[in-house]
Amino acid sequence: MASGSKLWGGRFVGDTDPIMEKFNASIAYDKRMWDADIRGSKAYAKALEKAKLVTAEEKDKILHGMDQIHDEWAKGVFDVKPGDEDIHTANERRLKELIGEPAGKLHTGRSRNDQVVTDMRLWLRDAISILKGNALQLITTMVERAAIDVLFPGYTHMQRAQPIRWSHWILSHAVALSRDVEQLQEISRRVNVLPLGSGAIAGTPFNIDREMLRQELAFDDISINSMDATGQRDFIAEFLFWASLCLTHLSKMAEDLMLYSTKEFSFLTLSDAYSTGSSLMPQKKNADSLELIRSKAGRVFGRVRPQLKHIRTPLEDKEAMFDCYDTVHAVLQVTTGVMSTLKINPSVMEAALSPDMLATDLAYYLVRKGVPFRDAHGISGKAVFLAESKSIPLNQLTVEDLRTASPLFSSDVSAVWDYSSSVEQYSAPGGTAKSSVAAQVEHMRTWLKKQG
Amino acid sequence: MASGSKLWGGRFVGDTDPIMEKFNASIAYDKRMWDADIRGSKAYAKALEKAKLVTAEEKDKILHGMDQIHDEWAKGVFDVKPGDEDIHTANERRLKELIGEPAGKLHTGRSRNDQVVTDMRLWLRDAISILKGNALQLITTMVERAAIDVLFPGYTHMQRAQPIRWSHWILSHAVALSRDVEQLQEISRRVNVLPLGSGAIAGTPFNIDREMLRQELAFDDISINSMDATGQRDFIAEFLFWASLCLTHLSKMAEDLMLYSTKEFSFLTLSDAYSTGSSLMPQKKNADSLELIRSKAGRVFGRVRPQLKHIRTPLEDKEAMFDCYDTVHAVLQVTTGVMSTLKINPSVMEAALSPDMLATDLAYYLVRKGVPFRDAHGISGKAVFLAESKSIPLNQLTVEDLRTASPLFSSDVSAVWDYSSSVEQYSAPGGTAKSSVAAQVEHMRTWLKKQG
Amino acid sequence: MASGSKLWGGRFVGDTDPIMEKFNASIAYDKRMWDADIRGSKAYAKALEKAKLVTAEEKDKILHGMDQIHDEWAKGVFDVKPGDEDIHTANERRLKELIGEPAGKLHTGRSRNDQVVTDMRLWLRDAISILKGNALQLITTMVERAAIDVLFPGYTHMQRAQPIRWSHWILSHAVALSRDVEQLQEISRRVNVLPLGSGAIAGTPFNIDREMLRQELAFDDISINSMDATGQRDFIAEFLFWASLCLTHLSKMAEDLMLYSTKEFSFLTLSDAYSTGSSLMPQKKNADSLELIRSKAGRVFGRVRPQLKHIRTPLEDKEAMFDCYDTVHAVLQVTTGVMSTLKINPSVMEAALSPDMLATDLAYYLVRKGVPFRDAHGISGKAVFLAESKSIPLNQLTVEDLRTASPLFSSDVSAVWDYSSSVEQYSAPGGTAKSSVAAQVEHMRTWLKKQG
Amino acid sequence: MASGSKLWGGRFVGDTDPIMEKFNASIAYDKRMWDADIRGSKAYAKALEKAKLVTAEEKDKILHGMDQIHDEWAKGVFDVKPGDEDIHTANERRLKELIGEPAGKLHTGRSRNDQVVTDMRLWLRDAISILKGNALQLITTMVERAAIDVLFPGYTHMQRAQPIRWSHWILSHAVALSRDVEQLQEISRRVNVLPLGSGAIAGTPFNIDREMLRQELAFDDISINSMDATGQRDFIAEFLFWASLCLTHLSKMAEDLMLYSTKEFSFLTLSDAYSTGSSLMPQKKNADSLELIRSKAGRVFGRVRPQLKHIRTPLEDKEAMFDCYDTVHAVLQVTTGVMSTLKINPSVMEAALSPDMLATDLAYYLVRKGVPFRDAHGISGKAVFLAESKSIPLNQLTVEDLRTASPLFSSDVSAVWDYSSSVEQYSAPGGTAKSSVAAQVEHMRTWLKKQG
Repeated sequence: MASGSKLWGGRFVGDTDPIMEKFNASIAYDKRMWDADIRGSKAYAKALEKAKLVTAEEKDKILHGMDQIHDEWAKGVFDVKPGDEDIHTANERRLKELIGEPAGKLHTGRSRNDQVVTDMRLWLRDAISILKGNALQLITTMVERAAIDVLFPGYTHMQRAQPIRWSHWILSHAVALSRDVEQLQEISRRVNVLPLGSGAIAGTPFNIDREMLRQELAFDDISINSMDATGQRDFIAEFLFWASLCLTHLSKMAEDLMLYSTKEFSFLTLSDAYSTGSSLMPQKKNADSLELIRSKAGRVFGRVRPQLKHIRTPLEDKEAMFDCYDTVHAVLQVTTGVMSTLKINPSVMEAALSPDMLATDLAYYLVRKGVPFRDAHGISGKAVFLAESKSIPLNQLTVEDLRTASPLFSSDVSAVWDYSSSVEQYSAPGGTAKSSVAAQVEHMRTWLKKQG
Repeated sequence: MASGSKLWGGRFVGDTDPIMEKFNASIAYDKRMWDADIRGSKAYAKALEKAKLVTAEEKDKILHGMDQIHDEWAKGVFDVKPGDEDIHTANERRLKELIGEPAGKLHTGRSRNDQVVTDMRLWLRDAISILKGNALQLITTMVERAAIDVLFPGYTHMQRAQPIRWSHWILSHAVALSRDVEQLQEISRRVNVLPLGSGAIAGTPFNIDREMLRQELAFDDISINSMDATGQRDFIAEFLFWASLCLTHLSKMAEDLMLYSTKEFSFLTLSDAYSTGSSLMPQKKNADSLELIRSKAGRVFGRVRPQLKHIRTPLEDKEAMFDCYDTVHAVLQVTTGVMSTLKINPSVMEAALSPDMLATDLAYYLVRKGVPFRDAHGISGKAVFLAESKSIPLNQLTVEDLRTASPLFSSDVSAVWDYSSSVEQYSAPGGTAKSSVAAQVEHMRTWLKKQG
Repeated sequence: MASGSKLWGGRFVGDTDPIMEKFNASIAYDKRMWDADIRGSKAYAKALEKAKLVTAEEKDKILHGMDQIHDEWAKGVFDVKPGDEDIHTANERRLKELIGEPAGKLHTGRSRNDQVVTDMRLWLRDAISILKGNALQLITTMVERAAIDVLFPGYTHMQRAQPIRWSHWILSHAVALSRDVEQLQEISRRVNVLPLGSGAIAGTPFNIDREMLRQELAFDDISINSMDATGQRDFIAEFLFWASLCLTHLSKMAEDLMLYSTKEFSFLTLSDAYSTGSSLMPQKKNADSLELIRSKAGRVFGRVRPQLKHIRTPLEDKEAMFDCYDTVHAVLQVTTGVMSTLKINPSVMEAALSPDMLATDLAYYLVRKGVPFRDAHGISGKAVFLAESKSIPLNQLTVEDLRTASPLFSSDVSAVWDYSSSVEQYSAPGGTAKSSVAAQVEHMRTWLKKQG
Repeated sequence: MASGSKLWGGRFVGDTDPIMEKFNASIAYDKRMWDADIRGSKAYAKALEKAKLVTAEEKDKILHGMDQIHDEWAKGVFDVKPGDEDIHTANERRLKELIGEPAGKLHTGRSRNDQVVTDMRLWLRDAISILKGNALQLITTMVERAAIDVLFPGYTHMQRAQPIRWSHWILSHAVALSRDVEQLQEISRRVNVLPLGSGAIAGTPFNIDREMLRQELAFDDISINSMDATGQRDFIAEFLFWASLCLTHLSKMAEDLMLYSTKEFSFLTLSDAYSTGSSLMPQKKNADSLELIRSKAGRVFGRVRPQLKHIRTPLEDKEAMFDCYDTVHAVLQVTTGVMSTLKINPSVMEAALSPDMLATDLAYYLVRKGVPFRDAHGISGKAVFLAESKSIPLNQLTVEDLRTASPLFSSDVSAVWDYSSSVEQYSAPGGTAKSSVAAQVEHMRTWLKKQG
């Protein structure tokens, strides 16, 4: 289309390359900010009146027109026209149709630069609030499902390490997610800063009252420097990185669950609602939900770098913001669904505990008899090797066998081979003893209440 | 929806979580492969007949049905139904509606795994061919616009380095793009390999003739191992990396052009068709096309890593493939538009040449008189310092001034201060002398002809 | 070497592949944590005594031995032996040499897992404190160099936009860095959490007093869940991302400075101490410091992703932490050097202001006469086009010329063409008016004081 | 140090900031290119003689001096001095000490720009050749260990899918690595192009014979454009991406092996030489080699992006090149070690096959009786569901049970439950039938021979 009909086209002659135009148009996705854009413009109209740049009557017309546009969007009847390159152009074009001349005054002293970033901050503020709710719901679900009495193997490097409680595993992930919620709050504070009144770069003339704008739009603070306010998207980069970290936590949890739901582990069964089949193999039941959860961290992380690169002339910031929100929003809900419907198989879990996982306890047995831990570790290692050589479980070694490794072994060593008492040793804060895990559950419940 | 109505749903009870379902559905974007999917299925129907798994009549019904579906897509009247999770499901569902029972035989021995990757390879093969055409058109434009007689400053580290030809600059970018074309050919060979007949992982039973499939679908080769064939997306990762490299070349060129089109440089003027204005500042004419070109390398590169990560359980591979193609397709065309319409300002370019850019020539003057280059470099450096101290251009130093740095300077030094003869020194292959640049142009023209 | 001599080797036979061993050894870099490792072990020895796992005498021996080791490292005489795969092994091996048997008790109930992460947190806490100091020094330098009275062109999209103060530009970057400092504080709180007493994954037995450990090592909090404590490196990922964001800010600033220091802009001159030359071209003076500053964001960002990926089995976390610290530490100092020594050329800067940069003011002139901004913008755009057509500066248009665009222009329009009064319009908070910039400087000074 | 003593310092006064200097120095790592640098300089000396810029005698002195320097490096006695910022400076400084004045002529018409990139290309050419050898050795090992007669479960989405041969799994990875080798060859061709004679950007004067240089240094081609030759590092970016892809293949294989070596799978046992233990848990035997292999793809990939970004002013390109080579070199060798020493447990593998993995065969049974596959898939799915409901294996369903799903089942269905005959169905090229796998082995052996 001829650029003469664009909002910025006075000095231009000739048409814009249509590929270029399509490239530039953001209305397809930034229309999601219609409500934020309207709120921003309404607040700005009030500031214009205070600065005597519009009359009370003109302001009322603008507010009324904006309310009508709000209704059109809300009802899904707003008609996007070919020339509407973005939501800001679309809303202003419509306002002009509705109320005529006063619409042309709305942009006085405002630039698309500060308008866009104001809309983004308003939109993201709400989005963050929803994500916080999703995360809290997931954490709540996890805490509720932290069945304290089930033991199973704790793994390091994918090898059986020590017996732990199932609840201890769940809580390890819940605790990470609670840090995510706290970090999201911090980001939220940096998001909730008013940029409106920064113009393109130099600031705003005409005594626009920025404090009034701040109050109208419920921002916590006013941006300090107008070039910084319009020229950076740090808050988007921070949000995307936050999302990557949060999704990494979910991804890590999904990876464990995928392992636990293999036939070979059989620790748990996913609900059919979170599984899919194969078009070829009738028996297949794939943990597709878990694969999806696991895969999304990479998608979002790939969005971070471009934000850092183009911080001064931000591009694709909005697409990244929407896509990232949609992804985290969906993944948190799917994970909540998975966690609330999965069925653990306690008997299989406990059957997977094996005596070699108590080799550390065997060393501790000796420590209690005065052997320095380093030596005790070596002696226990020899016992493991002996059992392996004999192809018998570690607890099937006789006291005589054990004495070849150390004379300090005696018949009371049999008490070592008890998984339930093994876990009770770890009673310091953060450990896997019943009391300690119960305290962690209590801690999380209290924390959840505070987030209210 | 109940999974019982899915193609894989025999063993499932209960409904799929709707968020999960939405998450999983790819029809919104993979419908772009409708033609590839139809071609693949038609070839497969022929192989089924040869293997006596369908009769000649059934095969004809399938082929005819597929042709009808082709027409529906081509005319834009194909009706995607709620249950169609992907293009493969949609086409098969429609086939069933059109021809009944024989449709149910089409998937015999085929898995969605080998079907999907066959479709992707067919689609990408065509896409690569289009991109190659776009790139050749751009290179042709650049070679045609390589005005040989214009001199301007060559920069390193953004500082004026040596006088060069404008054509030399253009060719430096054209040469890089020609490497991209050659690399794209290599990738194309790895793309053009038939995976169909690999099943899910184990291969295909029933004596399906893979060589016949290869010929029908015009692939160069047959995949060697069925697990590898269905389980990797190396060709997508390679394509995305190729796109990143190609876009980096365009980005680098755009960055130079942005600099050259600043008021301060004023070496060139972009066409209005590739510029945009400001909603606030009426005088602004922004090189928006160049910013867009510059920004896209990051977008595509962000897609590469996830492909590498999930190579065995590929996810988001199709979205990445389409987005990457669309981006490169558009950027190459916009760049062609920019290059064919930009106006260079030769007089400003030449006026930007300054005598200090001939300091290397001053050193060469001494080299020709027998001074080792290292010493000559030092002497010339002193002359530069002297001129700066006197706040005069380097060529305004008198012979006496120069003699304070070296007694070898005499009046013939004045011949050094000629930009046109300076550039003629660089006559070795690849240099900026007229003959050398003309040879480069010739080289590129010959190369372009060969690509035909 | 035979794994039998490793700390974990009891059950192993045969030698480790030497390439594998080299691959695994981290002593070459993690020896930087020697002091943190000693502090951690001393605190742990005290907790062992309280838990009656070592006697008071044994504890004293351990503390004394550790002090000796501290001396050896401090004096640079600590002798790393071939078998010392990491700093933890090295220090414990040395302790054994110095004090014999009690050394073997030090690891009781401790795992390398909680030991490593404790050391990392102690080390990073100190590193963050140094970086905060570096950043504050840079901000202080910038605020001091914010010469309020110099005007120059503000750019958007690399094109001249509006006249602004040089101080306004500096402050835009200082404000971003002040956010970095605040974010670093937040990260610091998450770093400063005690993991010691988490064992490998299950926690610690023997009633080790974690609260006592916390106090000894001056941590703010105790980790909540032992699996989470040993199995994640979120704090490293957060630190690396922080560094990427901070370096992006410096990179952006360096990019502007590179542009401003080109011959074509000539707004400023870098000190020789921050420039380098060319081995070929004697006149070259490259802003090498700025290129280095600009390049480091990418280096650090490339480290972030692997941290996210391997959060459960962390690898290369220490190398990344050290490299990132070293980079930011050096870049902040170099930037401080650059900023404190660069010379701005105010006359060139002001000469670069051009009348077209006041086109917005021309529109505002009409707004003040009651024209809606949208119309005023269009009229001013026409004036710009007219001036360009006539090849004259915008302010050389006669009132008659201007009246062809709007009858509202009269002779008082001449007052528009004053850069000094133009900038004074932007007096709202954050703007480029003198009062507003002075308030920003004041704000930053107050903020700096609070950082103590 | 005073920049006056640098090779480029004629016009500089004052000292360089020491942090800056340290930042800039690359000698610590680029000294690895000492041999390439000497080879390049020797060839250049010959070209200088041909161009009459040095005499035959001077040339001989230079060659002789360079040979001496070669000896010093080879014997490890070359003394790097404080002022040697890079290998090029170091070698030339030393040459001057050894032969005096003619050393100062060596750099005539050469720039550090073309010198550096020539050295890098020479060095990388050799490095690529070594990596190719490493990869071929690994592939050879894998092909030799492809035990054809062992069956085990093939997995998709980590769930048991169909019975396959162990050799089929190995070959799927070997085939991917063979593509890597082929791609490395292609990159090698683009690496092996002579940039010397490009100067800084404009080319080389003095009739330096580039064709002679090409022959002396055994390059395949001469760079086409001097700006492109010195200003891009595409070949490094390509090499790094190649390494990422190759490491991704190894990573994927390592991930499978980690899974297969868990207690729960117990398909294989790693040699002690490739395992490590725990400082706490005496029984632990971690597949540390596999974790290392798995982790390196991310490390290298993190290096790619910065190369793309700074292609015109390359930074950190050498560090990345060396680090990437070292990593791939080590990982390929460790993987070869792992693959040649691991012990598979065929009886455990075969015991892991379960009747539900033959559900596809059950559907094929019906296909052979004329049921369209889609229907057969559904019927088989119902049989799976029935067996699960009865908590019996699929093959324990009676013919009567099966007939509730389809009347076509009769007693001959018992032939389905044979894993050995199941795999024999997949006899098309690429499948898991014995003949097909044997053909793949043969294909790989032939391919390996051709790589000679």
